[in-house]
Amino acid sequence: MSRAIVDAGSAIPPVLPQGLETPCLVIDLDVVERNGRRLQGELDARGVRLRPHTKTHKSVAIARLQLELGAEGLTVGTLGEAEVMAAAGLSDLFIAYPVWAVDAKAARLRALHERSDLAVGIDSVEGAEHLARAVLGTRPLAVLIEVDSGGHRTGVGGPQAVADLARRARDLGLNVEGVFTHGGHSYAAPDAHLQAAVDETTSLGEAADGLRSVGIEPRTISAGSTPTAVEAATDQVNEIRAGTYILGDRQQVILHGSPADGVAAYVAATVVSTSVPGHVVLDAGAKTLTKDRASFLEGYGAIPAYPDAVIERLNDYHGIVRIPSGSPAPRLGEVVAVVPNHICPVVDLFDSFVATKGPEIVGRWPVDARGRSG
Amino acid sequence: MSRAIVDAGSAIPPVLPQGLETPCLVIDLDVVERNGRRLQGELDARGVRLRPHTKTHKSVAIARLQLELGAEGLTVGTLGEAEVMAAAGLSDLFIAYPVWAVDAKAARLRALHERSDLAVGIDSVEGAEHLARAVLGTRPLAVLIEVDSGGHRTGVGGPQAVADLARRARDLGLNVEGVFTHGGHSYAAPDAHLQAAVDETTSLGEAADGLRSVGIEPRTISAGSTPTAVEAATDQVNEIRAGTYILGDRQQVILHGSPADGVAAYVAATVVSTSVPGHVVLDAGAKTLTKDRASFLEGYGAIPAYPDAVIERLNDYHGIVRIPSGSPAPRLGEVVAVVPNHICPVVDLFDSFVATKGPEIVGRWPVDARGRSG
Repeated sequence: MSRAIVDAGSAIPPVLPQGLETPCLVIDLDVVERNGRRLQGELDARGVRLRPHTKTHKSVAIARLQLELGAEGLTVGTLGEAEVMAAAGLSDLFIAYPVWAVDAKAARLRALHERSDLAVGIDSVEGAEHLARAVLGTRPLAVLIEVDSGGHRTGVGGPQAVADLARRARDLGLNVEGVFTHGGHSYAAPDAHLQAAVDETTSLGEAADGLRSVGIEPRTISAGSTPTAVEAATDQVNEIRAGTYILGDRQQVILHGSPADGVAAYVAATVVSTSVPGHVVLDAGAKTLTKDRASFLEGYGAIPAYPDAVIERLNDYHGIVRIPSGSPAPRLGEVVAVVPNHICPVVDLFDSFVATKGPEIVGRWPVDARGRSG
Repeated sequence: MSRAIVDAGSAIPPVLPQGLETPCLVIDLDVVERNGRRLQGELDARGVRLRPHTKTHKSVAIARLQLELGAEGLTVGTLGEAEVMAAAGLSDLFIAYPVWAVDAKAARLRALHERSDLAVGIDSVEGAEHLARAVLGTRPLAVLIEVDSGGHRTGVGGPQAVADLARRARDLGLNVEGVFTHGGHSYAAPDAHLQAAVDETTSLGEAADGLRSVGIEPRTISAGSTPTAVEAATDQVNEIRAGTYILGDRQQVILHGSPADGVAAYVAATVVSTSVPGHVVLDAGAKTLTKDRASFLEGYGAIPAYPDAVIERLNDYHGIVRIPSGSPAPRLGEVVAVVPNHICPVVDLFDSFVATKGPEIVGRWPVDARGRSG
């Protein structure tokens, strides 16, 4: 595991910027741009479009950079994220989520549809009915049908179900634009991405045929997961919706979703206590690092400068770091970089982040869509 | 486990308020008040003061209610929480944390000290030195020495260490006001509170004697953990710093920290997908419920209306709920109440909450100190 810890920190400067007020989130814009160019280049070479998922960074500025680098539009996870991006003028949006559009949410969806180029995911007739009702009297709303490719989360099961739902959605006045999937089982284990990519492309190929069987030629055939982003970019797919690739995190390095130098984000934390033998305590706890921990990871984040250290327990504001006997330990008052296990929920805890270029601080940027979970 | 799930939901109205826009945090003010009166009454009867920890609710309004019910002042976990409470005029504050006061944080601490009646925790000479330097030229800052009572997180180890640190702190010009501990091992298992309460009181009694051995009569001898709040309120202690008791959560019902009717807070979530057999999907994921899950809990929260349901997986915006074969399942579009495993990090994800009295919505209240983790 130590090897992966060191790898995950290879883009973090060995000497951190001075004057960081901990705990804080730091994002290196140089690494962000390199990550953005890298995946955009891979997909350009394969003739597949990129529609990055903004739930990872929730930042208008980073979303704009992704578009400048060649992304065709944005993916979002919630109506709230879509509203934030649309308000900033980024209006080519796909909500990759089965939005349940009733009451206030129906009104918000309608308002967003009127001001943007919106598509929404569906996986049920009832969900489609609510969408159709919400936009009644405006132009048709674009929808994409979600298919379950093996992640077993959401999505209909196979081409016949796709065909049936497509026909019903069309009858409701919705514009069925294509199919999408999320091969979430790519997160199950370090090498799970290989099979998950095959499952995504196979399921999408069949789902596209399902659409064709009812006379709809899909304009969008979309796969989405950072670990599968490159391998799923085959002839059967014309869009990739990866999100985490842009920031990277500890688990992505292990899951083959980020290269070793692809971790752009870290939490800076101070050692505030060394009173209890055998460990040190950071001022980054569960309200900063989250308790996200995949089964193949030890501890709640990695400290690249101290690869043997294990962030063993998190209380709200305390991170208890076990230092194995004989291993070096950070001293009281030292500021260390922590690479989160999973960056998406960590970003969502911060109202803003420190933007750097290597060891140099260049600004403080807002997490524009923080907390917009619905 | 099902029994505890039902218990944890016994204060939640069987029919939820209409028109909730999910996911949202709902807090029943009647239950809050009952919880507040209950612990205040228990401690009043024992002649022990209550200084509730505001990190649970982060709400000025709820903190004010706690003071009105008889609390002597407030506990906070960070400088940021203290600043929010002080700005609202709630200025009798104890930061139960070894604040590392350098650079911008030193300036913030000094400003806060000048406008409030502040005490800060210490567990190292170096930490105390930074505090003393930060307030140089103003009046003395009150400090409490933290002792480790068995939680093995922070705090010095035993009465001699307390005496040594107290002498050094006094020599630095700090006003050593007392000792405190957090018996965090009360969270280890359902019956761990019994031993943890004994450990807290024993350690604090010895620590108080340590202070006396260097000529300091402690004014404050403070224990803090919701599971031990009543049992630690003995003659050896004169202050309790419980926090979670005011809202309650799923683990507190099991840990004996909340009575069955003491859960005031829940997350309202909508079933957005039932496409994949064997489970339903809620619009409350890891960015809403957090992945906090004690080893003795199954799943990421309880659904009292469906006690057999298990919230088995969380993605950012998806909660995947396994429905055992033959058990009732919520229907597509249904809104359900979810009792979080641990309420503190959940509250910190929301900018505001829906305030109710039973099934009636009475307002939307801000989570004033949201995100103030440093």
